[in-house]
Amino acid sequence: MSPDMSPVAGFNQLRRIESSTLFQGVVIAIIILSALTIGAKTYDLPPLVEQSLSVMDTAITLFFLIEILFRFTASPVKRRFLLDGWNLFDTLVVVGSLIPLDNSEAVLLGRLLRVFRVLRLVSVVPELRFLINSLLKAIPRMGYIALLMFIIFYIYAAIGSMLFASVDSELWGDVAIAMLTLFRVATFEDWTDVMYATMEQYPLSWIYYLTFIFLTAFVFLNMMIGAILEVMSEEQNAKQAQQAHDERDEITRQLRDVQSQLAELVSYTKSEQNGFGHRKVEDE
Amino acid sequence: MSPDMSPVAGFNQLRRIESSTLFQGVVIAIIILSALTIGAKTYDLPPLVEQSLSVMDTAITLFFLIEILFRFTASPVKRRFLLDGWNLFDTLVVVGSLIPLDNSEAVLLGRLLRVFRVLRLVSVVPELRFLINSLLKAIPRMGYIALLMFIIFYIYAAIGSMLFASVDSELWGDVAIAMLTLFRVATFEDWTDVMYATMEQYPLSWIYYLTFIFLTAFVFLNMMIGAILEVMSEEQNAKQAQQAHDERDEITRQLRDVQSQLAELVSYTKSEQNGFGHRKVEDE
Amino acid sequence: MSPDMSPVAGFNQLRRIESSTLFQGVVIAIIILSALTIGAKTYDLPPLVEQSLSVMDTAITLFFLIEILFRFTASPVKRRFLLDGWNLFDTLVVVGSLIPLDNSEAVLLGRLLRVFRVLRLVSVVPELRFLINSLLKAIPRMGYIALLMFIIFYIYAAIGSMLFASVDSELWGDVAIAMLTLFRVATFEDWTDVMYATMEQYPLSWIYYLTFIFLTAFVFLNMMIGAILEVMSEEQNAKQAQQAHDERDEITRQLRDVQSQLAELVSYTKSEQNGFGHRKVEDE
Amino acid sequence: MSPDMSPVAGFNQLRRIESSTLFQGVVIAIIILSALTIGAKTYDLPPLVEQSLSVMDTAITLFFLIEILFRFTASPVKRRFLLDGWNLFDTLVVVGSLIPLDNSEAVLLGRLLRVFRVLRLVSVVPELRFLINSLLKAIPRMGYIALLMFIIFYIYAAIGSMLFASVDSELWGDVAIAMLTLFRVATFEDWTDVMYATMEQYPLSWIYYLTFIFLTAFVFLNMMIGAILEVMSEEQNAKQAQQAHDERDEITRQLRDVQSQLAELVSYTKSEQNGFGHRKVEDE
Repeated sequence: MSPDMSPVAGFNQLRRIESSTLFQGVVIAIIILSALTIGAKTYDLPPLVEQSLSVMDTAITLFFLIEILFRFTASPVKRRFLLDGWNLFDTLVVVGSLIPLDNSEAVLLGRLLRVFRVLRLVSVVPELRFLINSLLKAIPRMGYIALLMFIIFYIYAAIGSMLFASVDSELWGDVAIAMLTLFRVATFEDWTDVMYATMEQYPLSWIYYLTFIFLTAFVFLNMMIGAILEVMSEEQNAKQAQQAHDERDEITRQLRDVQSQLAELVSYTKSEQNGFGHRKVEDE
Repeated sequence: MSPDMSPVAGFNQLRRIESSTLFQGVVIAIIILSALTIGAKTYDLPPLVEQSLSVMDTAITLFFLIEILFRFTASPVKRRFLLDGWNLFDTLVVVGSLIPLDNSEAVLLGRLLRVFRVLRLVSVVPELRFLINSLLKAIPRMGYIALLMFIIFYIYAAIGSMLFASVDSELWGDVAIAMLTLFRVATFEDWTDVMYATMEQYPLSWIYYLTFIFLTAFVFLNMMIGAILEVMSEEQNAKQAQQAHDERDEITRQLRDVQSQLAELVSYTKSEQNGFGHRKVEDE
Repeated sequence: MSPDMSPVAGFNQLRRIESSTLFQGVVIAIIILSALTIGAKTYDLPPLVEQSLSVMDTAITLFFLIEILFRFTASPVKRRFLLDGWNLFDTLVVVGSLIPLDNSEAVLLGRLLRVFRVLRLVSVVPELRFLINSLLKAIPRMGYIALLMFIIFYIYAAIGSMLFASVDSELWGDVAIAMLTLFRVATFEDWTDVMYATMEQYPLSWIYYLTFIFLTAFVFLNMMIGAILEVMSEEQNAKQAQQAHDERDEITRQLRDVQSQLAELVSYTKSEQNGFGHRKVEDE
Repeated sequence: MSPDMSPVAGFNQLRRIESSTLFQGVVIAIIILSALTIGAKTYDLPPLVEQSLSVMDTAITLFFLIEILFRFTASPVKRRFLLDGWNLFDTLVVVGSLIPLDNSEAVLLGRLLRVFRVLRLVSVVPELRFLINSLLKAIPRMGYIALLMFIIFYIYAAIGSMLFASVDSELWGDVAIAMLTLFRVATFEDWTDVMYATMEQYPLSWIYYLTFIFLTAFVFLNMMIGAILEVMSEEQNAKQAQQAHDERDEITRQLRDVQSQLAELVSYTKSEQNGFGHRKVEDE
């Protein structure tokens, strides 16, 4: 930058660079390269490739650090930068990669942290960001249904671990393992094996499984229907409100025309009557 | 309570306490504690913890008893208290815990009864109560579909147990076992093992399984679509009726304005004409 | 019937009996009894019960025969009786039970024919009849989608049996067996076992399975969405047309009031003007 | 063709033949025959049948060649013929069959190419063409969701192959195999076997599987809901716009009547007042 450039002009240029398609493209390319590096490391590689991957990894970490500092510098209001969830996430992922890790356990942790770099793709591509935001909005809607589901699972797990712990302690040993087993039953995964084993001791235990499957399927089905209806009605509300508004506008406009015509008519008639009144007085 | 307090004032205070957020919070906390106690008992515990859990269990039972008596006292119309399904359920669960149980079999029964205490969470949290009520409303809608499904299962089970009982009596022994096997096929759980076994003796038996799967899937799919449509049309009916009402109101209001303007105009014109009539008489 | 009763009166009484709730109830009860008899025969029973079941079976067959003749007699237009699909079905089921069967194979066939008596429940209960009719209406809608699915299955089965017949001839021996195997894959039933086996010889065969699963799931999903939308739009069309009609009626009625008021006003004004005209002539 | 026929008349006759139901029927019949031939070849057949199938195959190839040349000749604008995707596909399939193949490997390739002849059914039957076109339109809608899904799979696969490669290298060896294993888990196919194996070494690894299942199911569910809503709103937009237009037309027409009546009234009143004005002048 030339020394005669004012700080404001420099800042504006930074922002121009930051929002340019080229800069976005380079960042996305580096993130994808980073994802490929992470994937490549899960293969058995010759030492040379392994070393070059490590070098590349350091380079990517540096690039991400510079990029985040650059974006921080380019951001107009510094305080708001970290308040945005996506920026905070980006910063954490980058800072996490900087922590020096020596012993073998920590190396695994470091590699796991690097995996979350792939998620930076979501924070950079606006369409994915929008998608995630709309998914996050769908969560509270399912809150009480999830609680109800948990209660159903808990009750069945408690009953299951009381009755069937003696049959197979690996599946029904305690309430936590029993909940995992019930989740397996709910996904229909070899659930008959579980049932046949308990039916040998409790011939009527099929009632337990069938009521559980019907109950969870019924609640799930109604939850899905409810979710579809809720989103649909939200969308329709907005759309129909707009449409009704447009329609009303059209009719209202026409009625206003009628009213103005009437008002004109009334004023004519009144003035006319006054004319009469005047004349009547004259006549008398 | 001070001795100078009137019974009515005392009753009102009871109701105030009963509907307070604190009281509700304490009840919910105790129910969750009760649920945790039930879950904890499914683990192998040291004798000391086991004993303290028993003490806690008795304390919870007493708390629930006092709570239900308190709510009964605070209820304005005593006769209606037990007519409400949720209160009846609460009372049954609490009374069930009070029955003294000695021998080992009854102990299991007592523990099973205590599991239903977790369901008290549903009866206490209004949102869950609302959810359950709306799920219960969805049941009759599925009545005839369930009957149709049962008929399909029964016919296939009867045919299955006639043909395949000789192949595997554990799966096709009688009509009841065959229905259980068909439910397994309907959940796609190792259904090909069942089919391959019968195909060895009856090479064309794949027709039996495929028609069954298509039939149940088709009926289920249409049931789901029907359920979505029914709930949707109910909601939309209510909403559109409201919207149409609002829209009409707007237009009606405007038309009424037009009508009142017209009425005014008519009355002016009439009075004017009468004025003429009067004058005409004078003229003659 | 008393000898002095006319044939028409007797016929009307027949119809009255046929459409009475009692008669319908008795028929439904006998059908359910028949279903229970069929189910009971799949159990190992003592000879006495077996014999009494055979007697009951003959009795039920006779009852059904009398019932169908009775309904035929009570039907006002005889020719139309058998043109109705449900009556034809009932008659076939009853006549099928009458064929005398001696050797063991035919006994099985006779028992299989009796199973379809349970379906008579559908033909007798109007709500189930309505349900079946609406399901039948949904079939043509899915015709071309089913054809497309069949083409996908056929192509994949042809490819599969060409490539994998050497791996496992029981799963991929010819195009028919391959289609059955693909249906198994489409239901996710131990599909990885099938895949892992072929991947040993063709390491890239996972592409075959994944494209197949995505293709069928995608077509199925879109079919379901299409079906929901089609039924929905049909229902909504009917409903919205009605609603729009009602709304328009309300507004039209009000506008007509306005128009009549205006017409009144116009006639007053005109008559008034004529009055003027008359007077003006007088004045001149 | 008679020698006195003009080229234009001949061309029109070609087009008439090409669009005739008979010609379409013959082509569809030949395609189905071709599909049956392909299917038949997957069976072990006596040499005579095998030979006659080869002859039939050559005949079908020739027929397809003639048909495509015929359709090309009948097409009014030659350049556009190959720009249409379906024609291009047909031509490629037919030309692909013409390549002479000698060695055994190429024979398999030739047979595989012939399988795609079945797809010509889609290009010939207009309803299937329409269906495929509408399915193709649904693809871009799912683009970003698919990308999001891929990111979820990739992250979980990277984590899985880092942690579980030591447990079972056949399932978690590298990131590609791990993605295949995760797809298996997502279809609930023996997913508990995979989980139980890793839980022996990492007792908390159920968190990995449950979060993965919930995440993919949640994204999938919301994708499905989104797809339903999008298609629905498109359809409804078109329909409601039409309906609103019709409704508005009705009301607008009536309001215009009111306005014309009013205009008439105003003109009467005005002319009357003018009459007055005139008279008043006279009176003065």
